[in-house]
Amino acid sequence: MNVFIIGLGLIGGSLALDIQNEFENACIHGIDTNENHIDEALELGIIHKKATLNDIGNAEIVIIAVPVDVSLQVAIEVLNIITENTLVLDVGSTKEDICKAIANHPNRRNFLATHPIAGTEFSGPKAALKNLYRGKTNIICEVEKTAFKLQEKALEIFLKIGMRIRYMDPKSHDKHIAYVSHLSHISSFMLGKTVIEKEKNERDIFDMAGSGFASTVRLAKSSPAMWTPIFKQNKTNVIETLEEYINNLQQFKDLMMQDNFKEIYKEMENTNHIKQILNGILLEA
Amino acid sequence: MNVFIIGLGLIGGSLALDIQNEFENACIHGIDTNENHIDEALELGIIHKKATLNDIGNAEIVIIAVPVDVSLQVAIEVLNIITENTLVLDVGSTKEDICKAIANHPNRRNFLATHPIAGTEFSGPKAALKNLYRGKTNIICEVEKTAFKLQEKALEIFLKIGMRIRYMDPKSHDKHIAYVSHLSHISSFMLGKTVIEKEKNERDIFDMAGSGFASTVRLAKSSPAMWTPIFKQNKTNVIETLEEYINNLQQFKDLMMQDNFKEIYKEMENTNHIKQILNGILLEA
Repeated sequence: MNVFIIGLGLIGGSLALDIQNEFENACIHGIDTNENHIDEALELGIIHKKATLNDIGNAEIVIIAVPVDVSLQVAIEVLNIITENTLVLDVGSTKEDICKAIANHPNRRNFLATHPIAGTEFSGPKAALKNLYRGKTNIICEVEKTAFKLQEKALEIFLKIGMRIRYMDPKSHDKHIAYVSHLSHISSFMLGKTVIEKEKNERDIFDMAGSGFASTVRLAKSSPAMWTPIFKQNKTNVIETLEEYINNLQQFKDLMMQDNFKEIYKEMENTNHIKQILNGILLEA
Repeated sequence: MNVFIIGLGLIGGSLALDIQNEFENACIHGIDTNENHIDEALELGIIHKKATLNDIGNAEIVIIAVPVDVSLQVAIEVLNIITENTLVLDVGSTKEDICKAIANHPNRRNFLATHPIAGTEFSGPKAALKNLYRGKTNIICEVEKTAFKLQEKALEIFLKIGMRIRYMDPKSHDKHIAYVSHLSHISSFMLGKTVIEKEKNERDIFDMAGSGFASTVRLAKSSPAMWTPIFKQNKTNVIETLEEYINNLQQFKDLMMQDNFKEIYKEMENTNHIKQILNGILLEA
């Protein structure tokens, strides 16, 4: 089974490791614009062979795991050169633009838009992890537009690497993911920024930071190269979530200025309900 | 060694466990306004004996681990009835008000203001953890106002349970802790609120939440009873951090609206510097 992975970072690299593990006959071909990443991926055993787009004619599966702006172009290039039975997957964090980009391509039925919701704050081949996807959710968009045989092939892979599948239209995906993923990244980046700005001349102060701070700013370590195009593609939804978040913070500040701590207590108590929601995430995971 | 712990929650309970572990001869007496917590603490082996303030005459050490508004009054009550050689510690997350409250007490030299920076998002005796304090920082305020012999006793305990000590004046403590702890809690609570409000009618959406979301909203599980008085006591500093945080979010939103993704990339890249800071926290921990 010839699998081509384009983009050998955390997401593509981790998929490569799990596919190798589940499919004995898989031969993983790696493509990346960064030569160092290809060398690293070979050394780390993430891929078996170095490849280029020209080799894709013999691919059974092509996985596009590059930043979401690059993937728009790459998806078309790949669809242009594949054979009839090749499955092409993208795994980006936005789904509307990619689905639009390939909507009218003659090989549309070879393409499946997916978003495996898994990751860490790290990037590059060294960040690739075995079993990253086990117990995690994979959102599949516009499944009905993919050839039935190729849907089946994709499902087999995702189920074998331990993912549960949810189906959703690209518009809904992008709207909701803005709340449960994209906003978290901005809140974390801006929290990191606020504290660094304030404390830059007093390094010792970070001695005072505990595990709570570490947890809330963890995502501020994420890759700007990956996240900038995500925010760009999901601009309208992300701005909406940001406005609501800023309003809530502003309201909290107003309550403090009015010494209305009774209401602040209630706000926190109501939000404690997040416990059940997070338990849901962890239990199902 | 008779140790009295007032407040048998996460912080007081965890201290009880570590002190028992490090001092064979320690007898831990527990005081709490919540009778259930006393029973739980006895059952869990967190305390040896149930006690009341009337028993405090024979205490060698009294640790006040109640919400920071309650501790102002409790500290005075305790200082009123202790003997000459009793060490009284408070372990709250704000230090200015408590230091002011006991500043002119005749037994001021029996008191030491401390902030062991450790915890989880859980509360009550069941949340108590062994070794919670190992490798963590303890901020001690106004050390010079405590009797030398009692400073020594406190240091012995904190070093044995594995804490490193930093000395700071209460004003600076409250200012800096607002950035590295209190702001994180508000950012997390408001993030939780924003997402819950938006998604309350679509429970399935939380299937889409991954580990990043879980990490940024973890602190939104924290106890309102503990945190409301902290925000109240540290109101001025917390409002300042909130304003800066809101401004940074607003500026990020403006950049998005202006399609200035080059600058957004730079913002994130600059904040990636948080990696080194967090590595510092983790390495030293």
